[in-house]
Amino acid sequence: MRDKIRVTVWNEYRHEKRSPEIAMIYPEGIHGAIANFLRTQPDIEARTATLDEPEHGLTSEVLENTDVLVWWAHVANHEVKDEIADKVYWRVLNGMGLIVLHSGNLSKVFRRLMGTACSARWREAGEKHRLWVVAPGHPIVEGLGEYFEIPHTEMYGEFFDIPRPDELIFIGWFQGGEVFRSGCCWHRGRGKVFYFQPGHETFPIYHQGQVQQVIVNAVRWAAPVSVVNFRDMAEAPWFPEPIEPFASGQ
Amino acid sequence: MRDKIRVTVWNEYRHEKRSPEIAMIYPEGIHGAIANFLRTQPDIEARTATLDEPEHGLTSEVLENTDVLVWWAHVANHEVKDEIADKVYWRVLNGMGLIVLHSGNLSKVFRRLMGTACSARWREAGEKHRLWVVAPGHPIVEGLGEYFEIPHTEMYGEFFDIPRPDELIFIGWFQGGEVFRSGCCWHRGRGKVFYFQPGHETFPIYHQGQVQQVIVNAVRWAAPVSVVNFRDMAEAPWFPEPIEPFASGQ
Amino acid sequence: MRDKIRVTVWNEYRHEKRSPEIAMIYPEGIHGAIANFLRTQPDIEARTATLDEPEHGLTSEVLENTDVLVWWAHVANHEVKDEIADKVYWRVLNGMGLIVLHSGNLSKVFRRLMGTACSARWREAGEKHRLWVVAPGHPIVEGLGEYFEIPHTEMYGEFFDIPRPDELIFIGWFQGGEVFRSGCCWHRGRGKVFYFQPGHETFPIYHQGQVQQVIVNAVRWAAPVSVVNFRDMAEAPWFPEPIEPFASGQ
Amino acid sequence: MRDKIRVTVWNEYRHEKRSPEIAMIYPEGIHGAIANFLRTQPDIEARTATLDEPEHGLTSEVLENTDVLVWWAHVANHEVKDEIADKVYWRVLNGMGLIVLHSGNLSKVFRRLMGTACSARWREAGEKHRLWVVAPGHPIVEGLGEYFEIPHTEMYGEFFDIPRPDELIFIGWFQGGEVFRSGCCWHRGRGKVFYFQPGHETFPIYHQGQVQQVIVNAVRWAAPVSVVNFRDMAEAPWFPEPIEPFASGQ
Repeated sequence: MRDKIRVTVWNEYRHEKRSPEIAMIYPEGIHGAIANFLRTQPDIEARTATLDEPEHGLTSEVLENTDVLVWWAHVANHEVKDEIADKVYWRVLNGMGLIVLHSGNLSKVFRRLMGTACSARWREAGEKHRLWVVAPGHPIVEGLGEYFEIPHTEMYGEFFDIPRPDELIFIGWFQGGEVFRSGCCWHRGRGKVFYFQPGHETFPIYHQGQVQQVIVNAVRWAAPVSVVNFRDMAEAPWFPEPIEPFASGQ
Repeated sequence: MRDKIRVTVWNEYRHEKRSPEIAMIYPEGIHGAIANFLRTQPDIEARTATLDEPEHGLTSEVLENTDVLVWWAHVANHEVKDEIADKVYWRVLNGMGLIVLHSGNLSKVFRRLMGTACSARWREAGEKHRLWVVAPGHPIVEGLGEYFEIPHTEMYGEFFDIPRPDELIFIGWFQGGEVFRSGCCWHRGRGKVFYFQPGHETFPIYHQGQVQQVIVNAVRWAAPVSVVNFRDMAEAPWFPEPIEPFASGQ
Repeated sequence: MRDKIRVTVWNEYRHEKRSPEIAMIYPEGIHGAIANFLRTQPDIEARTATLDEPEHGLTSEVLENTDVLVWWAHVANHEVKDEIADKVYWRVLNGMGLIVLHSGNLSKVFRRLMGTACSARWREAGEKHRLWVVAPGHPIVEGLGEYFEIPHTEMYGEFFDIPRPDELIFIGWFQGGEVFRSGCCWHRGRGKVFYFQPGHETFPIYHQGQVQQVIVNAVRWAAPVSVVNFRDMAEAPWFPEPIEPFASGQ
Repeated sequence: MRDKIRVTVWNEYRHEKRSPEIAMIYPEGIHGAIANFLRTQPDIEARTATLDEPEHGLTSEVLENTDVLVWWAHVANHEVKDEIADKVYWRVLNGMGLIVLHSGNLSKVFRRLMGTACSARWREAGEKHRLWVVAPGHPIVEGLGEYFEIPHTEMYGEFFDIPRPDELIFIGWFQGGEVFRSGCCWHRGRGKVFYFQPGHETFPIYHQGQVQQVIVNAVRWAAPVSVVNFRDMAEAPWFPEPIEPFASGQ
């Protein structure tokens, strides 16, 4: 049968080191919490990488052996080196899945893959976020009901400057009056990208069952598809000979 | 692990009974040929049903126990009873996958699910059809290369009167000068629909490896997603009480 | 320059005749109110048609001379004759624009064009509906800001059983906790369809400036495009001769 | 009535200066040829800009006064300065339309807006390109028939590494056996982008009526929409106060 899906969970890992309150929620870091619930799945294996490791923990060797990269970032989006963001970008175009969480919307990698600013309205008021399923046949909603709620979170609101999603999965309702495209899929080259809004660091959101379910589902959805003899996306291949012969000057 | 995907392969089964040449290509019928290669997959089980069986072989019991229905039809599209087409339609909205092959584009079920006429240009000249992959990260192209060819087939050409596909997988090149959206995905209610052009009855197209690969992949893609407490699509549910309380007259 | 866009505003016209309160809001009927603000535009001319007229006011001659049909319906969706719904359906596939308002989501014409049940959650509690623009470059939002509000309306909530919109324009926030895809565009054949949620008959919604602006914009967007020598969508044309000659048996 | 659409036609303008054969086809440059046919339209005004002008002719003042920018580039894609590409990028997100022609697919601006490599197969064999209309209700096909042909051109073939188009308008058939998504639309921020394949410099393609018609139509489609009080896309605005009041700790 199919080999396990090899996931790398990347986290800037700054909030947890600076704030005892956040460290209490995520004693192993947000990356540790996410890797832990992923590891409970028989078809998934997970490792972690963080900003302050050499090459941010994302060496060529790590990236080549990653099927799906999960990305959590916030205050240090600008500290990610351009050459690392560049390597991640090309790896996605060549097939690696990418799951971007919460404030990763403003990361270099996500903005480059989207082609837009990815900005949104925002507010920290600890308000309720209710996520409605608008794609009930999509594998990312496996196991969910019509909606689920995050009791307290940071608000992100429209207009969210993203390209039209290839698949819009969740629409979020916020207590303060906004809506948000809270779960969205895109294809880029041979890779797939899922953005998922839940995850503010000051609330135990990644301990919530439905959030974990969505991330597990998204890992399976984003796993690479094996195609054969497909070119590297960095090439614009020249084919001097037509497949079908035709008389020149025809 | 997951149970097997239960597939029903439906065929009008007329050409094979009337034409010795076609019967030679498909001695067990087109449905038999398709069911046979599906049965080689460890995660799929397949049965068949045909037009001339009672209720066209599609009783409520059969439909309730079908995860993915494969549909081949041509000369007898109009003989399918409205009440059976109606049952298939609602079963798709409630989650059953549907794979429509070749001239099934003009079937009652497909036209009703699409909301358009589904007509196209056509010509029988035994010409070449080359299918180009335009969604290389999609599970339906697993195992394929950049393109594959059907050496001889019936031409279907644009304008193909379908709704814009949710996912366009293959674009076909025809020797006589036309193009066609030869593989397309749509979501309808909780169900998923895949249309795939290859399959003219006078050529051994369903014996070709890449065609079989696509249909196997499509079965896996179209399999239902388990959601919980989701309503039946025939209902427009009334919720007198708001989820969030608010002062009336506010 | 371009001729005026010829609009027919269709209304079942039942609520206004039965309820003095509703008649007070719409003394000329909902169709009259809509036609009146459309007529203020120099590039639009508008007439009306209602259910109780012969052929529901939608004779072949009227339909042939309609560029965009606006459709308001509610309690009498089932009273529309199949043959009239059928004529409207084919006229849309052949280029006529269609704007479906509020409870017209359950009309025969809209459901047939969508290929789904078009059902949704609903509640009558007079709550607030805030419509957020999620497609700020689309002509249907010309003149609007980031959002606008309907102070009191009937709630329609997700899951809304529609095909994935070709263009999602508005996402609605409801006071009671739901969200809704409140403004959506689709292409069908050569025609264009816009669904717009605002419009419950017991509130003066069509007297509100932003709602009028959206409907005016939608009329311009939905107006037919002139293509030449394009086939009737009811045909599946046969082309015995290839455009490009090729050797048979090649 | 509406003011004229202000178009700037940008060209790297190198081939015409170096090759007498190309200069013969385009004595005023490709930009001159395009600007000339645009100027025949009563609702369009056009100026030009080229690579070797200061700031490539694209000063902030020019960009601020451009509604739609037409972009032709080929051998000098890499010579465009990053800061100019950056200004064009943000101007598109804030509403300017962009029409990218032929080998402009590999320009900095287009690749950044797409978020992909935008590479494709290619071949110079002077072969035939037949463009089929697959969106017959879209304003970009106004005045066209089911297809039109470019007698001799450079081939671009799939897989074309672009994001899934928001609207796929033309599918191209090439004599040598390839297909191509030859006309595609995307929304980015408040702006709209149209890519159109025809235009190899060694053939008189911009003198062909249907090609001119498509570019004129695309200018009208890409013209900005006036929204009010919409934020600059470079901002991620913070709203400390909710629109809807709620009890904190609720």
